[in-house]
Amino acid sequence: MRSATIGVIGASGLVGREILGWLRRFRYPAESIRALASERSAGQRLSLDSQDWELEALTEERLEGLDLALFATEVTVSRHWVPLALRHGVRCIDSSSAFRRDPSVPLLIPEINGEQLASRPSLVASPNCSATLALLALAPLHRAFGLESFSVCSYQAVSGVGTGGLRALAQERENSEKFSEIFPDRIDQNVLASLGEILPNGFTSEEEKMAHESRKILGLPALRVMSTCVRVPVERAHSLAIQAHFAKPIDRAVAEDALRHAKGLRYTPEHLPTPLRCARNEDCFVARLRLVPPGGVESSKAQDVLLWVVGDQLWAGAALNVVRLVNLLLRG
Amino acid sequence: MRSATIGVIGASGLVGREILGWLRRFRYPAESIRALASERSAGQRLSLDSQDWELEALTEERLEGLDLALFATEVTVSRHWVPLALRHGVRCIDSSSAFRRDPSVPLLIPEINGEQLASRPSLVASPNCSATLALLALAPLHRAFGLESFSVCSYQAVSGVGTGGLRALAQERENSEKFSEIFPDRIDQNVLASLGEILPNGFTSEEEKMAHESRKILGLPALRVMSTCVRVPVERAHSLAIQAHFAKPIDRAVAEDALRHAKGLRYTPEHLPTPLRCARNEDCFVARLRLVPPGGVESSKAQDVLLWVVGDQLWAGAALNVVRLVNLLLRG
Repeated sequence: MRSATIGVIGASGLVGREILGWLRRFRYPAESIRALASERSAGQRLSLDSQDWELEALTEERLEGLDLALFATEVTVSRHWVPLALRHGVRCIDSSSAFRRDPSVPLLIPEINGEQLASRPSLVASPNCSATLALLALAPLHRAFGLESFSVCSYQAVSGVGTGGLRALAQERENSEKFSEIFPDRIDQNVLASLGEILPNGFTSEEEKMAHESRKILGLPALRVMSTCVRVPVERAHSLAIQAHFAKPIDRAVAEDALRHAKGLRYTPEHLPTPLRCARNEDCFVARLRLVPPGGVESSKAQDVLLWVVGDQLWAGAALNVVRLVNLLLRG
Repeated sequence: MRSATIGVIGASGLVGREILGWLRRFRYPAESIRALASERSAGQRLSLDSQDWELEALTEERLEGLDLALFATEVTVSRHWVPLALRHGVRCIDSSSAFRRDPSVPLLIPEINGEQLASRPSLVASPNCSATLALLALAPLHRAFGLESFSVCSYQAVSGVGTGGLRALAQERENSEKFSEIFPDRIDQNVLASLGEILPNGFTSEEEKMAHESRKILGLPALRVMSTCVRVPVERAHSLAIQAHFAKPIDRAVAEDALRHAKGLRYTPEHLPTPLRCARNEDCFVARLRLVPPGGVESSKAQDVLLWVVGDQLWAGAALNVVRLVNLLLRG
C-alpha cells in the first residue's frame, strides 16, 4: 500500500514547522509529505533536523493531491481552505479556532477523547494550546474524582503568537525604547493580562477558548471554567496555575497515581517545572499538587486541588497533538 | 512641640530607602529622621531625591533615642531588635513577618483596619506586599458583598527579594550562562512557581502569608484563601489575578462604585494595568472586573468576581503602608 500523502499547510509558521519535524520523527517518509504555505513564502527552502523542504504555494490543485491536510494556519486561512479541501475529499486536521465550536466537528486530544476518531470524521479540530495543556493535567483527575469546575491563570510564552512574538521580545531586549505592535504593550520585563480580543462579557477570546474547549473535550457542557490569560516575557512553553473542584473527595495517593500514569503527562513532585526546563519536551509537566480541604478544616476531605502545569505549547500543546491524531488516523 | 524622632532600620535596603523617601515627601523634617543599618553599611552615604543620609550602625543606644522605629529588616533582625526597642519605650512598626501572626500585635493596612490604631499599640506589623495589594482591591468589595473565599495567582517582581533580585535579573540578562543563587532557578526568560520555603502542606511560605494575613486583616478567621505565588522576570510591581466569591449577589454598578471610591486604589476599566506602567506609582491598580454567574447560567446573579490587580510592591505594597501608619500615629 502506498503511504498517504500528507500536506502541512502553513509550513513556514512555528507550529507548521514543528508538525513537519514530528512527522519525520514518527518516520513518515519525506517523499509523502508536502510543505505548503502562502504565495509569499513559496519557493523558499526550510531546513529542519537535516531535512530540506521546499515550500510550495497552496493551490486548489495541490490540495487535491493530498490524502490528509494538516492546517497550521490563521483562522481566516482555515475558514477559506478547509471547506475546499473537504470538497476534494481530503481529510483535514485544523489547528485554528475556525471549526472548534462547530458541533459537527470533533475537537480532539488523543489521550482524552481520541476514541471519537472511530467514526472516521473528515474534519477534526485540534484545540487551543493552553486548553490542551490544562486538560492533559486535569483529565486523569476528572476520571478519578469527577471535575465540577476549574480556574486557570496562565503564564504564556511569546511564541504563542508565532515567530513575530519571538522577534518582538528579542528586539525589545536589545533596545529598551523599542516596542512591537504585536502585543498590546511592551512585553520585555512586563506581563500583559490581555490575550486576543476583549469580548462583551469582559473575558478575552483566549479565556473563552479555555472555557468552551474544555467543556467540549471533556463532554461536560455545564463545566464551570474561569480563567485569566497572561503573556509573560518567556520564549517558549506555557505555564498554568490551576485550581480544580471535584465531585468526590480526593485521596492524595489516588490523585498522584492518576497523574503518574497519564499519557503525555509527567508528574514531577520533586522538581519544579519551569518554561526553560520544559521547552522542547514532548510531555506536559505537572507538580505542586496541593489538596485544599473545605472551609479551612484541615481534617475534612479535600475536594479542591491546586496544580502547577508547564508544557511546550508548540510541541505538547500543538504539533504533537496534531501528529498523534495523524498516527491514530493512518496507523489506527 | 518638637517633632518625633523617627528611625528607619534597614535603611540601606530597597524598602528602607523607599520609607525614607516617603517620609520626606510627607514633609517629615530631615533632621528628625535617622537612617540605621547594619555595621556593614554604617558610615555609607545614601542619596535619595536630592537628600543625603548617613547610615548609622544600629545600636541599643541609638534605638533608645528614637520615638518611633520603622523596621524594614529581615525577620531575624526584627526578632532580635524589635523587643529591645519596645523595652526602651520606642514605638515600633515592623515590615517583616516576625510578629504578623502574633495575636497581640495588630496587622494593619490604614485603608482597611487602621481604626485599630485607636488603642495606641506599641508594636504594629505591616503586612506582606502581595497580601497588601490583594486586600486593597478586595476590601471595598468585601464591605459591599461579604467576602467568603478568594484565590490568587501572582506575577511577582524580582525586587520583591531586595536589591539582590534586581542584580540577579540584570546579570542573567547580560550573560545567558549565568544564574544567580538568589532564586531557585534562572529567572530571566523564565517563571518560578516557588517563593520562600515549601511547607509540609505543599504551600510555600509566601502562599501561607497570603492566607493568614488576609484572615487577620479582614477579621475573617474562616476565610478560605488559595494561592499560587510565582516569580516573573519583571523588575518592579507585582501583578495578581484574583478570583473572589461573595455571600451576596454582585451588582456590577455597585462593585465598580466601590472600587472607584476606595482609598489607595485606582480602578481603570479602560486601561490594562501592567507592572511597567504601575511601577513608582502610589496607588494599587485594578481592572478587568469580570462577574461570573453560577453554573454557567448567564441570567442568574453572579457571586464570583475575577480581577486583575497591579501595584508597586515597594510603594503601594510596603513603604507607603508603613508611612501612612506613621501619619496616623503621629498626626492622628
